[in-house]
Formats: sequence, C-alpha cells, structure tokens
Amino acid sequence: MEEDLEFGDVDELFKTAPKLKDECVIQENLETFIHKICELTPQLVCITSGGTSVPLERNCVRFLQNFSSGNRGAVSTEYFLQAGYAVIFLYKRNSIQPYSRRVLECFKPNDSSSVQDRIELIKCAVQLHHEAIIQGKLLEVSYETIIEYLQLLCLIARSMNCLEKRAMFYLAAAVADFYVPWDVMDVHKIQSGAGPITIQLALVPKMIKALRKQWAPSAFCVSFKLETDPTILVKKAKDALHKYNVHAVVANELTTRDEMVIVVTNEGDKTIKKDLDVEMKLVQFLKEKHREFIEGK
Amino acid sequence: MEEDLEFGDVDELFKTAPKLKDECVIQENLETFIHKICELTPQLVCITSGGTSVPLERNCVRFLQNFSSGNRGAVSTEYFLQAGYAVIFLYKRNSIQPYSRRVLECFKPNDSSSVQDRIELIKCAVQLHHEAIIQGKLLEVSYETIIEYLQLLCLIARSMNCLEKRAMFYLAAAVADFYVPWDVMDVHKIQSGAGPITIQLALVPKMIKALRKQWAPSAFCVSFKLETDPTILVKKAKDALHKYNVHAVVANELTTRDEMVIVVTNEGDKTIKKDLDVEMKLVQFLKEKHREFIEGK
Repeated sequence: MEEDLEFGDVDELFKTAPKLKDECVIQENLETFIHKICELTPQLVCITSGGTSVPLERNCVRFLQNFSSGNRGAVSTEYFLQAGYAVIFLYKRNSIQPYSRRVLECFKPNDSSSVQDRIELIKCAVQLHHEAIIQGKLLEVSYETIIEYLQLLCLIARSMNCLEKRAMFYLAAAVADFYVPWDVMDVHKIQSGAGPITIQLALVPKMIKALRKQWAPSAFCVSFKLETDPTILVKKAKDALHKYNVHAVVANELTTRDEMVIVVTNEGDKTIKKDLDVEMKLVQFLKEKHREFIEGK
Repeated sequence: MEEDLEFGDVDELFKTAPKLKDECVIQENLETFIHKICELTPQLVCITSGGTSVPLERNCVRFLQNFSSGNRGAVSTEYFLQAGYAVIFLYKRNSIQPYSRRVLECFKPNDSSSVQDRIELIKCAVQLHHEAIIQGKLLEVSYETIIEYLQLLCLIARSMNCLEKRAMFYLAAAVADFYVPWDVMDVHKIQSGAGPITIQLALVPKMIKALRKQWAPSAFCVSFKLETDPTILVKKAKDALHKYNVHAVVANELTTRDEMVIVVTNEGDKTIKKDLDVEMKLVQFLKEKHREFIEGK
C-alpha cells in the first residue's frame, strides 16, 4: 500500500508541476545521442550530479538545497569516459562539470603554480571536454529545481530503456527529500517585515521506484546514500538496496566522502579507499559489476 | 526600541555561533592588504557576492539559500579594478569569481567558438586575475554560511574603518533574511522516514545598521534590494535608504536584473540600462558619487 502511494506520487507531481522547458529539443538530442551509442559504444551511463534546488516562491528568490558541489559526478564522468562508457551527464546548473574542476582550481587564491602551468592545465581540460562532446561520447543536460531533475531523469531513462542491460544509472545527485508543491507555493518573494516564518515541507516521491519498475527496468542501477552519522550509514544503505531493488548503493559519510566509500551490493560490502581519487577505483569496481550483470552472472 | 533590539542581535548571534575558522590568518592578510592600499591606491571597495547558505543541520546536508550566481559581484569587481579601485571580494565559495565567468562559458555545451579561441579567452582571464592579486589590488575572502558572512564582513569593515571616506561597501551578496540559530539546530541529517517536516526560521539581524553605526561609520555604503514584484521595488529601496542610512540602494527586479537597475539616492532615482553590462555604467555612476562624497559635496 505504502509502495503504491509513493509510486503514484511521481505522476501526481508531474501533473501539478509546470511543463519542462524545451522538452522537444532535449528529447531530440537524446534520441540522436543514443542512436549513435548503439553503433559506437558498448555501454552508456547516466550520471546525475549536484544538488537539486527546492524553490520557496514561484518567482524564486529563496530555495532549499542539499549540500553538493557536484565533484563526485563530474570526476566519475571523466573515469567512466576513460573506461569506455558513453555518458549522459545530468547536472545542476553551475555545479562542477567534467574537466572544469581543474580550471576552477586555477582561480583559487592559494594556487602556487605559475600562470603558464595553469594555462597548460586549462588547455588540456577544455580539449578533453570538447573531444568527448564532438565524438558523441558525452551529452550534458542541466537542471535547476527538483521538479526539472525528476522530469529530465524520466525522459532520459525512458530513452535509455532500449539499451536494456547495457544502460547504467549512477545517481550521485543529492536529491531533495522535502519540497514545497507548486500549487501551494507563494508567487512572490516572501517578505521579512512580518517577522519569523514557518515552512511546511512535503515529502518528495521516491523516483528510484519508478525508475526501476517503469522507466528503465532492465538497466543496472547504482544509488547513493549520504549520512552524517556513521553509526547508521551502512544500515541505511542496506535498507535502500532492498527497498528500491537497486544493484549497488554507494554509502558515504559527509566528512570522509573524499577519502572512502562503502559499496553495498547483494554479494556484500566493499570498502573503497582513495587512490588518486575515490572515484577511480569506484568506477573500476562498478564497471566490473556491470559486466557481470550484462553477462547474467 | 525596535532599532536597538535589531542592533543588539548581531552581537547576540556572534556570541552563540561557532568561532570563525582561521580568524587570525584572515585578520593578518587584511591588515597587510589594507596597509599597502594606503600607499598604492586612492580608494578601496569591499564587494560582497553570491548567496549565503543557512544550514538546517550542524553537520550540514541541507541548507536554505537566496538565489544568486555571484555574477553581479564578480563583474562589478572587474569594473571597479578598471576604475582604479582596490577590491576586497567577499564571496560565497563556488560562486562566480572575477574573470572566471569567461572560463565557465567555455564549458557550456552550446559554445560555438573554436577550442583555440576559448583557450585564448581563458589565458587572458587567468592572467588578469593573477595580476590583480600579485599587484595587491585584489584580495579574495570566501565564506559558506550566513554566520561566516556576517563574521567576515564585521572583520573586514573594522579593518577598513581607518580609510574613512576612501572606503566603499558594495553589498551585492544575496543575504538570507531567515535562519536557524545554532543553539536550536539539529546535529545530524534530518531523516525523511518520519514524513513531512516543518521548519521554524528566525529573522537574521540587519547587519547594515551595525556596519553604518559601529563597524565603519565613515565609509560610503551601497546596498542592494531585489524583488520579484516590480510594483513594490522602488518603494522598498527608498525605505531601505532611510532605514539603514546608506548612500545608495541599487534596486533590481529578478527577471530584468541583467538589463537594468535603478539606483536610489537622496538626490533622486537614476535608471541604469545595460551597455555592455549593467555593471559597467553602475560602477561609473557610483565612482562619481563616491568622489563627491569624499570631497564633501
């Protein structure tokens, strides 16, 4: 009963929300991209990345967001491309993009490298990014709000469904759990003159269930679980593995997430510690799991 | 009475909040920078830029934020440097930095310029940024939360007070009006399993009053007012001009803010429309107002 309720909610949310802008253009780009994949590349992964903003006003001045720079998704994209995957990168606008993190480091006040070195680094980053796009290996799609995120993920997942087991979802975005439904949202900026305020937040429907059951049921699906309390982390990840029937849950703790993660699967837990980045070994590990999955092991 | 209450609140907020990290290092950098300004540059402007995050948990996973890319502050910094000012750029981490916007544009999927053109553009941006820093004309200080923003602004303003009328504040940051006080904040990530939630938000004390009366009372002070409802915008800006006793309020409406702004001063309103950027003319206008202020007109 609870499952049906949650499941129904995604459709309900889509019905009351404003329509996605440029839906036709995005749909067309997706089809062209995926059509080429079928010829070119053995596997395709959809990587979601960054937070999702939850507007408090329709003319949005204030929003709620989950903490996320988008680093995990951006870096993982670089490694998945290296590993021979094509990537659809679904990212929060203004979060970190693949290869761009190196560029932003050049603007840090404490960067001690020479201007010449920085320019070389940037040159390399822009070229790698450009090549991935023109070779048809990387498609970038951006969103701002939780609603746009869900609408785009649905569109992408339905388009990727034709790839069956060759498709992977790597859901690294920090998706909001709570939101203000469109039909009860204030139209204009909430004024502070009237004193302190109270905000009522509804639960965001769990889209992973819709993804697994309806949108792309044959795909390999990896979700993420972030907690601040290490004593409940692995338990929560295991619960999510069974509840949403995904193939792996990457468990990370807020303060140590750049140093290590624990990948929870039905075959047990695997702790992955940082080499150059955590993402390097994590992508290798998941590529292997995905290969076993395709081969039906 | 109301004034005293609001005024007292900033100190109260500082007392209950966690101490600022690296306060001594920042203080030292500020002193060195301002000491050089006294010799080198006639005027110094502190530009605040980006949103301010309002954590909902002490181990922060979720936060509330005002919409702001940091573009206004970053672009204005470039123009103030061109106009002969030294700049302290107080910015939200991961928001747009001076000169870096041109770099980020190179990673937009629809950028049609050649890789060679993009690299030339980036080369120029990195060099201009680097030069401004090594010549001692630009000091960048970053913050994350509303609390850090207030603590750093207080530190900077007190340090700039010695410059008297030569100091300007250009408060372009989108500062939160509401926040969760540290002493009532949840320690760990709020769990979604328990269903919908309600958040109680307190009013952020109006720091402009403390800035004008205590921290740097002789400086030229420009604040910003953003509204989504154009019918109340200029009225709200005029109220702010008198209430906070600032020298100018830049009024902008959410949807047209990149096309035009209205600068409200005691001498009347001045509408500034986009030339290359809105910021180009805005900075010219404020430089002139600041000159008159210094000369005591």
